[in-house]
Amino acid sequence: MAMLYMSGWENGEHWKGLMRQHLPDVEFRIYPEIGDPADIEMALIWHVALDQLKTFPNLKLISSLGAGVDHLVGERHHLPDGVPLTRLVDPSMTSQMTAWCVMAVLNHHRRWDDYREFHRERRYEEIDVAPPADVTVGVLGLGELGGSVARALLPMGYQVTGWSRSPKDIDGVQCFHGAAELTAFLAGCDIVVCLLPLTDETRGILNAETLSRMKPGAFIVNGARGAHIVEPDLIAAIDSGRIAGATVDVQVQEPMAPDHPFWFHPRILTFPHVAALTIAETCAPQIADNYRRMKDGRPLLNLVDMDRGY
Amino acid sequence: MAMLYMSGWENGEHWKGLMRQHLPDVEFRIYPEIGDPADIEMALIWHVALDQLKTFPNLKLISSLGAGVDHLVGERHHLPDGVPLTRLVDPSMTSQMTAWCVMAVLNHHRRWDDYREFHRERRYEEIDVAPPADVTVGVLGLGELGGSVARALLPMGYQVTGWSRSPKDIDGVQCFHGAAELTAFLAGCDIVVCLLPLTDETRGILNAETLSRMKPGAFIVNGARGAHIVEPDLIAAIDSGRIAGATVDVQVQEPMAPDHPFWFHPRILTFPHVAALTIAETCAPQIADNYRRMKDGRPLLNLVDMDRGY
Repeated sequence: MAMLYMSGWENGEHWKGLMRQHLPDVEFRIYPEIGDPADIEMALIWHVALDQLKTFPNLKLISSLGAGVDHLVGERHHLPDGVPLTRLVDPSMTSQMTAWCVMAVLNHHRRWDDYREFHRERRYEEIDVAPPADVTVGVLGLGELGGSVARALLPMGYQVTGWSRSPKDIDGVQCFHGAAELTAFLAGCDIVVCLLPLTDETRGILNAETLSRMKPGAFIVNGARGAHIVEPDLIAAIDSGRIAGATVDVQVQEPMAPDHPFWFHPRILTFPHVAALTIAETCAPQIADNYRRMKDGRPLLNLVDMDRGY
Repeated sequence: MAMLYMSGWENGEHWKGLMRQHLPDVEFRIYPEIGDPADIEMALIWHVALDQLKTFPNLKLISSLGAGVDHLVGERHHLPDGVPLTRLVDPSMTSQMTAWCVMAVLNHHRRWDDYREFHRERRYEEIDVAPPADVTVGVLGLGELGGSVARALLPMGYQVTGWSRSPKDIDGVQCFHGAAELTAFLAGCDIVVCLLPLTDETRGILNAETLSRMKPGAFIVNGARGAHIVEPDLIAAIDSGRIAGATVDVQVQEPMAPDHPFWFHPRILTFPHVAALTIAETCAPQIADNYRRMKDGRPLLNLVDMDRGY
């Protein structure tokens, strides 16, 4: 019996060495070296060759190599019926994402880039910023990632709020939920951090209408998926002066085309989808754990609900 | 009876309005409008006219308007004998300092400035950085500020260590203490954050000798006092390639002179002493509390030990 690694990344041998430590009795194959398709019991997948999955007659478990699975849910017609899909909810990815979002929030509020400019100009001058207790940072999405970011912002003294589909309760965080409370949530935020899963309900959630409900001068941080933002609407909201700017790790098209307007906009800071990377060392044990659960018939960890979309 | 505000800042009237809310029966005077010196029971001080303090015969309490009191301890000959000195340990200052230090750590590790440069060059490229679990951030000083920074770094996934004069115990933080353990502490750090009080023992603690004990490529963050660092030694350690660079909110001479070498060094990022500002709104209640404690003869909060130096 074998596990098949199907990823566009060139680190299959690295994964092979790691998985051998955790599951020494399981053969680890790297796509396109499939061998006998009947041997494949578990597939580790990202964006590659999804249409092959139905050709493995004994496939019992598919694990995404990332936390977000919207691209897999969107191509669910390729996934064999009845084979569970799990995603990685790795503490390291959570902490990396927490760090990236906190960095983006702090650099906006505490004016990192402006102070770098002052340094270059040899100006020893204070920039007046609001006390953190007067700044409300709202987190869209209060799952593993969003909840972690909300909690991490509390010791910095910010007012922290959050919005999620279903009700949540996080100490020190004012929690809103459901479509009915989205406007009230957005209206209170000086900075909004998006960490929602991408589903039919959340696609384009930051658009002309919702951006117009935000405080004048509010700032957007997106660590989730590019498609949460209607990009032309964001640009228009910034150009109109309604929104102060945005720091985005993700974009609708990745990598961004050379003529993508984000490259040229002075108030939009882009990153190349690096907020939280899959670190093989910390993910391998979780994959091995789910492999054993599948073999033993025990409940799987981080099972994706295809209808909910995450 | 009166309280006298002695600061170089031009916000005396703002403080006056606030203190009136908290202590409506106490007259608030703003230096140099002293009035009858015999009325002054409490002085709020920073750097101004310290030599006047001994001329107030009924002075019973002196409160620093900041958290660091090294400049006052250094000029203790101006302070009247037997009059207690307190300092501000304000939650807002702690959270501001925590935010600033976390920002400096994250921007170094997660390469904010390099990604900004990539954005300007329209390069959609990932920079390889170590997983946070492989990065050790060490905090020099585990008091109110250092302890807060150490705890705030944990959810970002870093290995967090700390060093202090006396033993400390912080969940999740490997704590070193005393002169004997300083070298072992420094040798393990990828990033060192200095939040020590400035005393005779800590002045120049980051010097040629201690910098040479650090990991090659280590990075320094200083949110404490400029004099913790022997500035020429830091420059030499960076130029030799031993130390990767530094982000410093404080310098030996403030404001930095136009010819200060930090302005011209590509690996040293300076800020104009803005990491944690005294916010009158959040400090006024603490000052009022100590005033009442003084009047009632109850123990004072945040009393400075002049011999210890903080």
